[in-house]
Amino acid sequence: MNAEIITIGDELLIGQVVDTNSAFLADALSHAGLDVSRITTVPDRRDDILSTLKEASQRARLILITGGLGPTKDDITKEALAVFFEDHLVQNNQVLEHIGHRMSERGIEMNPLNVMQAEVLSSCEVLHNELGTAPGMWMESNGRVYVSMPGVPHEMIRIFTEEALPRIKTHFGGDAIVHRVLLVTGVPESALSLQLESWEQALPPHIRLAYLPSLGMIRLRLTAHGKNEETLEGELDALVEAARPLLGRHLVGEHQGSLEELVGKMLTELNATLSLAESCSGGGLSRKITSVPGSSQYFKGGIIAYDNLFKVRMLRVGRQNLLRHGAVSAPVVEEMARGIRCRMKTDFSVATSGIAGPGGGTPEKPVGTVWIAVDSKWGTVSRCFRMFDGRERVMERTVTAALGMLLGEIARSTE
Amino acid sequence: MNAEIITIGDELLIGQVVDTNSAFLADALSHAGLDVSRITTVPDRRDDILSTLKEASQRARLILITGGLGPTKDDITKEALAVFFEDHLVQNNQVLEHIGHRMSERGIEMNPLNVMQAEVLSSCEVLHNELGTAPGMWMESNGRVYVSMPGVPHEMIRIFTEEALPRIKTHFGGDAIVHRVLLVTGVPESALSLQLESWEQALPPHIRLAYLPSLGMIRLRLTAHGKNEETLEGELDALVEAARPLLGRHLVGEHQGSLEELVGKMLTELNATLSLAESCSGGGLSRKITSVPGSSQYFKGGIIAYDNLFKVRMLRVGRQNLLRHGAVSAPVVEEMARGIRCRMKTDFSVATSGIAGPGGGTPEKPVGTVWIAVDSKWGTVSRCFRMFDGRERVMERTVTAALGMLLGEIARSTE
Repeated sequence: MNAEIITIGDELLIGQVVDTNSAFLADALSHAGLDVSRITTVPDRRDDILSTLKEASQRARLILITGGLGPTKDDITKEALAVFFEDHLVQNNQVLEHIGHRMSERGIEMNPLNVMQAEVLSSCEVLHNELGTAPGMWMESNGRVYVSMPGVPHEMIRIFTEEALPRIKTHFGGDAIVHRVLLVTGVPESALSLQLESWEQALPPHIRLAYLPSLGMIRLRLTAHGKNEETLEGELDALVEAARPLLGRHLVGEHQGSLEELVGKMLTELNATLSLAESCSGGGLSRKITSVPGSSQYFKGGIIAYDNLFKVRMLRVGRQNLLRHGAVSAPVVEEMARGIRCRMKTDFSVATSGIAGPGGGTPEKPVGTVWIAVDSKWGTVSRCFRMFDGRERVMERTVTAALGMLLGEIARSTE
Repeated sequence: MNAEIITIGDELLIGQVVDTNSAFLADALSHAGLDVSRITTVPDRRDDILSTLKEASQRARLILITGGLGPTKDDITKEALAVFFEDHLVQNNQVLEHIGHRMSERGIEMNPLNVMQAEVLSSCEVLHNELGTAPGMWMESNGRVYVSMPGVPHEMIRIFTEEALPRIKTHFGGDAIVHRVLLVTGVPESALSLQLESWEQALPPHIRLAYLPSLGMIRLRLTAHGKNEETLEGELDALVEAARPLLGRHLVGEHQGSLEELVGKMLTELNATLSLAESCSGGGLSRKITSVPGSSQYFKGGIIAYDNLFKVRMLRVGRQNLLRHGAVSAPVVEEMARGIRCRMKTDFSVATSGIAGPGGGTPEKPVGTVWIAVDSKWGTVSRCFRMFDGRERVMERTVTAALGMLLGEIARSTE
C-alpha cells in the first residue's frame, strides 16, 4: 500500500524552514507498515497544490498533506482542497468553540480571520487540533484517503499521532513490517559490502538491506515485509546471527536509534554514570549525550578544557606530560580521562584531545590527529585516530569515534 | 527562472534522515535570485527517478538532484540518469586518481566498488568532490541544466558551493544580487518595525527588506537586485548608514555569517577572552563557539554542570540559592556565570540553566523555561526565556539566545 506526503509552504521553497514533518510522518508510516513512495513540497499556490494532489491520487491510496492552514491570506490549502473535491467550506461549531476557548485563555480577542479557521470541508471528518487553532481534516474519495494537517510541527505531530494514525491503521490494516539496525564502525562502506556479499545475495526478496553511512559509522538496516510479524522477527534474528561472525569486532551493537541513545540505554541498565573531558570535540560529545531525554540520570557533567592551563588546573594533568608529549598525546588524554572521572566520581569517563585545524598541525602531528581515552574501574584505554575533511568533520568524527569507544568499553565491562 | 530539487534515497522515505539538503539548496538558489518551485523526494528505484526527472523537465530549467551515488548496489541514480539522457557511463581517470588518493591517504585498499565510483555519464561535466569519492555531474539537455550530487550533506554543500553555483550563475546570468545583514538585539520585532517605518517606506522597489527573527535577536536582510553590482553596493552602504542612528545601541553589527563567527570576530578585535558554564544547553554553546577556526585564541574552556553537586563544587554556586530558588533561576544562573569567569579569569562568561524536557517541568517552571546570564567586568545580566517544541529545539534555541545576549553585552562594552 503506497502513501505519499505533500508539504505545502513558500517558507520550505526558499529554505527558511527545514521540512522535519516529512521525516516524522515517513517514520511513523513505515513503522505502521505503510510505504511512503514520494514526498512533494509545493508553494502556497493553488495550481501547484491541485496538480500535485491529482498526480499523487494516481499513484497512492493514502495522501498526507501538511501546511497552508494558517489564518493569513497566503494560506490557501483549504480553498484548493475544496476545488479538488468539488466541495465547499462550512463553519464547524465545535472547532469555533475550541478556537474561542484558546483565544480567551490567552486574553486575545477573536477576529474574523480566527472565525474563518473554523471552516472545514463539508464532506470531511474533523481531526481535533488540541495544540492549535487550525483543525485537521480526513477526506475519503474514490477509494483514497486524504489527511490535511497544519504545518506547525508540534500541532501536526499531536493530530497525526492521536487522530489520524489510529484511523489509518483501522482503514488500511495491511502487512507487518519489521526492522533491524546493526551499528558498524571502523570499516569503510565498500569493504563492508564485500565482506557481506554472499550473505547479502542470499537475502530473500521480502527482506531488504540498506547501508546508511554517517561519520565514522555505518548502519545496516534490514526491513522485512510479510503477513506474520513473529515469522519476520524469527527470520531477521537468524540473519543477524549469520552476519555477526562476518562483522566481527566492527559490530558495535543492534540498535534502531542513535549511538548516544545506545550509550544511555546501556548506562541505565548498568546503573552507571558518565563524565567527560573534552578538548578538540569542543562540547560536541556532551551535546550528543545530553540530547537524550533522561540523560541527567547518568551524565554528571563535563569540562571543556580548551586551554592547557585549564587541563592542569581542573583535570590535574601533569605539566611534565604536557611539556614532554604535548596536549595531543596518549599520556595527556589518559590523564584527562582519569582526572575527570576522579573529580566527578563516575563509573565511566571519556576524554578527547586533538588538532581540529585549520591551524596547529605539525609534520609529526598533522591536522586531524585525535587521541581519545575511556577510563573506568577496569582501567584506561586510549587510541589515536587520523581524521579528515576540515575542522567541522574532525570535530564531528571525534564525537562519533568517542561514542564508539565508550560503547565498546561499556560492552566489555559486562562480559 | 524556475528550478526544482529532486532528493533520492530510501532513508528519506522511511524518515530515518531529515532532508536538510533541500533547505540548503533552496536557500542558496533563492539568494542567487532563482525560484525553487518544487521539491520531490523519491526512493532508490529506477522508475520513480525516471518519472520524476521527466516531470521536472517539463516545468523547470534547472534541476538539482542529490543522493543515490554511493558505492553500494542500492544506489542507482547514475544508472537512471544514463537511461534518462540515453547516455552511458565511462570511467573518468581524474576521478579515479582522486579516489585512489583518498583511499591510500587513509590506508585503505581500492576495491571494484570504489573503481565504479569513478564512472560518470559520457556527456557530463564532472564536478569535483573534494570531500568524498562520488563525483558530481553537470548535464545539459534541451535547454535544461541537470546537476547530480551525492546526498552526504557536507560533500553536497562543498560541490554545490564551489563547483555548481558559479556555473549556474554564469549559465543563467541574470541580475546582480547584493545582500546586507544587520544583527539587532534587545528590541521586539513590532517595535523595531515602527522605529524603521519611514526608512523602510523610502526603500526603492529593487531593494527588499526582510525581518528574520530568531530567539533573542532579529536579522534585517536587505536584498538589492539590479544590473550593476557596484551601484547596488553603494546604495546598500548608504541605506545601512541611514539605519544606524535609528537602531542605536540595538545594532550589534553587520554580518552575513553566523552568530558564533561574529562573537569570534568581536572578541578578537577586543583581545578579550570567554568561558562558559552550561547546564541545559549541554555543551551545545561550547560546540558552536569552538566550531570557529582560531577560537582557541579567545575561548579558554567551560564546564557542563549537569548535576547540581557539580554546580556547587566547580562553580561555587550557593546551596542556599539552589534550595530556595532552584537550579533554573536568576540567582543560580548568575552565580554560575560569575563562578566560571572568576575561575577561568576571562573577560566574558555565559551561563545557561533551564528545563529542556520532556521531564522536569512544574506549573511554575514548565518545560522550556530557560535562564541565561552573561558576566563581565561591567556586571552580570540575566534573562528568562520560554522556549517550545521539544528537547532538541529548546537546547538549540538556548544556544542561539545565549549567543545573542553575549553579542549584545560585547557590543555594549565597546560603547
